[in-house]
Amino acid sequence: MKNFHPTGNCPVRDVISRLGDKWSMLVLITLNANGTMRFSDIHKTIDDISQRMLTVTLRTLEADGLVERKVYAEVPPRVEYYLTETGGSLIPHIEGLVRWALKNMDVILEHRQINQ
Amino acid sequence: MKNFHPTGNCPVRDVISRLGDKWSMLVLITLNANGTMRFSDIHKTIDDISQRMLTVTLRTLEADGLVERKVYAEVPPRVEYYLTETGGSLIPHIEGLVRWALKNMDVILEHRQINQ
Repeated sequence: MKNFHPTGNCPVRDVISRLGDKWSMLVLITLNANGTMRFSDIHKTIDDISQRMLTVTLRTLEADGLVERKVYAEVPPRVEYYLTETGGSLIPHIEGLVRWALKNMDVILEHRQINQ
Repeated sequence: MKNFHPTGNCPVRDVISRLGDKWSMLVLITLNANGTMRFSDIHKTIDDISQRMLTVTLRTLEADGLVERKVYAEVPPRVEYYLTETGGSLIPHIEGLVRWALKNMDVILEHRQINQ
């Protein structure tokens, strides 16, 4: 049997790995809902992420060109984050997942309880 | 500023956390493409997953009711996995992400190289 290899070893797989991460998804939908945000505001909104994990997640999203970081030369320096056009184009797909989760949440939670 | 909390602490967040995992996504699209599969076939298809991680991923998907496991009383025992209806209903959303990744891969990879 020759199995279908979903994404093989091509770069798509690598891109999916980076997106397929709950923190990336949460940061993207937070920035989409609130527009430009400071680091501390993102942290307040997603309050169960550690400061280090939020820093790493924002750097990865910035390196991929999904989030833009702007530093204002003020004292203390102000740093703001916002979605790029590429980042924004991902939002409908994440929203699709969220809608699916909302719709199927009850069935999933019920199934988990039966099988505990 | 009162920020929008994307999914708060509600169970949707928990569901997204479990889906927002590259191995879960890869297992789901592999089972969708190939139908019923044995453990060893899934492992051959997603060959960079460890045996332990594949076991954990399949158990979680089974506990959530997205994958069904069927054991045949043979010697040696045959164990097969396939998508449930709930699992199948998630596929279009994962495919949406994959299509997005295919379309935006070049831009992302280019952006990464510029910022290295």
